[in-house]
Amino acid sequence: MKTFTQFESHELANTLIEKALGFKNNPLQSKDKGQGKRLGLIFLNPSLRTRVSTQLAATNLGVDSFVLNMDKESWALEMQDGALMNKNKVEHIKDAAAVLGGYFDMLAIRAFPTLTNKQEDTEDFIINQFIKYAGIPVISLESAIRHPLQSLADMVTIRENFKEKRKPKVVLTWAPHIKSIPHAVANSFSEWALGCGHELTITHPVGYELDEQFTKGATIEYDQKKALQDADFVYVKNWSAFNPYGKILKVDENWLLKENKLGTNAKAKIMHCLPVRRNLELSDEMLDGERSLVQVQAKNRIYAAQAVLDSML
Amino acid sequence: MKTFTQFESHELANTLIEKALGFKNNPLQSKDKGQGKRLGLIFLNPSLRTRVSTQLAATNLGVDSFVLNMDKESWALEMQDGALMNKNKVEHIKDAAAVLGGYFDMLAIRAFPTLTNKQEDTEDFIINQFIKYAGIPVISLESAIRHPLQSLADMVTIRENFKEKRKPKVVLTWAPHIKSIPHAVANSFSEWALGCGHELTITHPVGYELDEQFTKGATIEYDQKKALQDADFVYVKNWSAFNPYGKILKVDENWLLKENKLGTNAKAKIMHCLPVRRNLELSDEMLDGERSLVQVQAKNRIYAAQAVLDSML
Amino acid sequence: MKTFTQFESHELANTLIEKALGFKNNPLQSKDKGQGKRLGLIFLNPSLRTRVSTQLAATNLGVDSFVLNMDKESWALEMQDGALMNKNKVEHIKDAAAVLGGYFDMLAIRAFPTLTNKQEDTEDFIINQFIKYAGIPVISLESAIRHPLQSLADMVTIRENFKEKRKPKVVLTWAPHIKSIPHAVANSFSEWALGCGHELTITHPVGYELDEQFTKGATIEYDQKKALQDADFVYVKNWSAFNPYGKILKVDENWLLKENKLGTNAKAKIMHCLPVRRNLELSDEMLDGERSLVQVQAKNRIYAAQAVLDSML
Repeated sequence: MKTFTQFESHELANTLIEKALGFKNNPLQSKDKGQGKRLGLIFLNPSLRTRVSTQLAATNLGVDSFVLNMDKESWALEMQDGALMNKNKVEHIKDAAAVLGGYFDMLAIRAFPTLTNKQEDTEDFIINQFIKYAGIPVISLESAIRHPLQSLADMVTIRENFKEKRKPKVVLTWAPHIKSIPHAVANSFSEWALGCGHELTITHPVGYELDEQFTKGATIEYDQKKALQDADFVYVKNWSAFNPYGKILKVDENWLLKENKLGTNAKAKIMHCLPVRRNLELSDEMLDGERSLVQVQAKNRIYAAQAVLDSML
Repeated sequence: MKTFTQFESHELANTLIEKALGFKNNPLQSKDKGQGKRLGLIFLNPSLRTRVSTQLAATNLGVDSFVLNMDKESWALEMQDGALMNKNKVEHIKDAAAVLGGYFDMLAIRAFPTLTNKQEDTEDFIINQFIKYAGIPVISLESAIRHPLQSLADMVTIRENFKEKRKPKVVLTWAPHIKSIPHAVANSFSEWALGCGHELTITHPVGYELDEQFTKGATIEYDQKKALQDADFVYVKNWSAFNPYGKILKVDENWLLKENKLGTNAKAKIMHCLPVRRNLELSDEMLDGERSLVQVQAKNRIYAAQAVLDSML
Repeated sequence: MKTFTQFESHELANTLIEKALGFKNNPLQSKDKGQGKRLGLIFLNPSLRTRVSTQLAATNLGVDSFVLNMDKESWALEMQDGALMNKNKVEHIKDAAAVLGGYFDMLAIRAFPTLTNKQEDTEDFIINQFIKYAGIPVISLESAIRHPLQSLADMVTIRENFKEKRKPKVVLTWAPHIKSIPHAVANSFSEWALGCGHELTITHPVGYELDEQFTKGATIEYDQKKALQDADFVYVKNWSAFNPYGKILKVDENWLLKENKLGTNAKAKIMHCLPVRRNLELSDEMLDGERSLVQVQAKNRIYAAQAVLDSML
């Protein structure tokens, strides 16, 4: 595996899910496999959970990891080919990525969208520039449009918590937020759930339609209550509008997910990638109750990352 | 030992002091004891000495350590149960602590007081919320009202430097400062010195009385010169007023500790937890002279942390 | 070797260059040599390449490394002896350096010049204060006036890429920039190139003369084109004026190095320490072409640091 930035195939997803479950059962089973290998973790945006879970995964495999925070303020990278660099950008992605490619055996990169340049974000420009110039295997720690390690952890969580023969019914429900949030988690969840053959319904207020390249095959249902009927898993997540790009249309607080919306559905499990805005996106009663899988998802981030790193070694 | 946040008993203190001295003599004597264990170091406030000494202690025991800076600005945690999170707080302590509790074997946390909410600080609210929700052993790297690793290092330093049969006479003397400083070091020093059976005198300008729960059993003496007579150890430290809470009453520069205040007392050793404001809290002549134990204290921070980690493993 | 802050002798330089080339060939040949040793990396100014390459070098030798960011804002150090510390400086270099000296086996320090106090910078005051008070071996990660690890990596790069018997002709050419840049890289490159017996020509606009203590023995040639004739290696670098100290006299964009300036010189290789301002200092065609050694230099930073650490162990 040279890059891990998106869903590739049901077969690969299956392999990674099984591998992750194996590591969860015995995290140190390959503790010397990565001896002498070095992973560079590049953050163009801040991270806590993603950074730590990936470092723990690396440590479980004997891989040394090194964190580089290249926030826009402190180490602004020029991304455009041919630029005359006489402004605030201190280094070109070409040079920075090549140096890092020479220093490490694998790179993992977080690069959020600007939410101001739809075309650049949609092309996943920044992470693709890194891949182009680094020349070594690259793992996405969330790009402009995808968050594949989160989605892999989510698929692991669904596999662990669904033992029936039939396809699970999965619902992705939009939730209110006060900030303009990227589409990456929602896009990837849809891409992976559909790719893994789950039955997916997406529900959101009119206007919050996601980019169709990620949702083709899902049922779109604007009535939240109706969408939630018979759900096995309910994934709660905010995202900003795709049209007009990156905008908050309205913080519709009625979309808060709370217990009474699930009616008589006793089996539905609740998922969220964290951090979650309590009582704005999801109610305390749900997060602290029996339905919640959010802590399981967070823990599975370690084993998802470990499965990916292991496949690259 | 499940938590290390305060003085517990003379017996435990003794065990930890002896263990620390053993590690000082042979730091790598248990270098594989912590193999495969992970320590998370959470900083809600910045740190250099505390972070590095704790990481060195972990390394001495073979424990992997991971630093998370969650400063108020970059990763603001909601601390109040039941809050509607529609403002600037990005994650609830409940969720963050539980995730970290799932990722690590032990957590160490620094959480300074706000100095604006006396009740919350006095209840040591933040660190207790972490303990409540993390579900794993927690070490205080300085909380709102205590700094137990510093005090343990201080007790180790006193043990090393006092070979007489009688109780040492220990003096805690207030020093001037230009900022509003927490009470944690002073509280803990008092708590540990008294708990370890030392004879403690506390001297400070009128108005700087500490919370009595930490000082019961100590002699309070407002005349600094009188307090210093016959001292074996003089601990120099600034703190803000407890009433009115967190205020600087007056920067009384006469309280600077300098050589001539010790008169004919040739034996007195000088202690300070660092960082120290030279010539405001303590004079150059004292810090650079024979009396100073400040570097010994700093070094003992490693072995104090190592004794605590070792007891938790 | 107790300190590594500047060029010492042709003999030592030779030893280090050969050692670095040996490590490049087999990075893990001494992977247990530094077991149990600890390196503190102190950054008074930000760093990416230097930090990572030094950490990788340490890891190659089994040395544990610990990074401390002591930026001026967050942990301001008082540098002046005898100061009354009643302003914004939180700790005196005396105390901080001594603590770090007690915690680590070796220190590596980055301390840029202020470019506002010529005398202090010229005396390399800050790093010398660290050396004075740390009491353990110290490596410069770029000081006010020198960047010796960069220069060692540059000498390694020249050695690797020049197989003739004669002395290589090396040209250091000033390049335009929009910021006021320190002299450290230029000074050190000149010091090492001359010390290693290379034939050195320095070319820059009138007014950008470097401190003569570093350039004695070099040819100064104000005509860039003439200077470049027959060059084997062309080192491109901006620096601010030495007189008036730290000023930008004029951003003379004609000094941009591009292919047509090399005329018929087919053999000349191009060097730069990175980060480089593309199309302001050096043209894309040169950086992306066959002449460029900039990625080789960056990679050699690891082995230069490893040679120095190895010599200190």
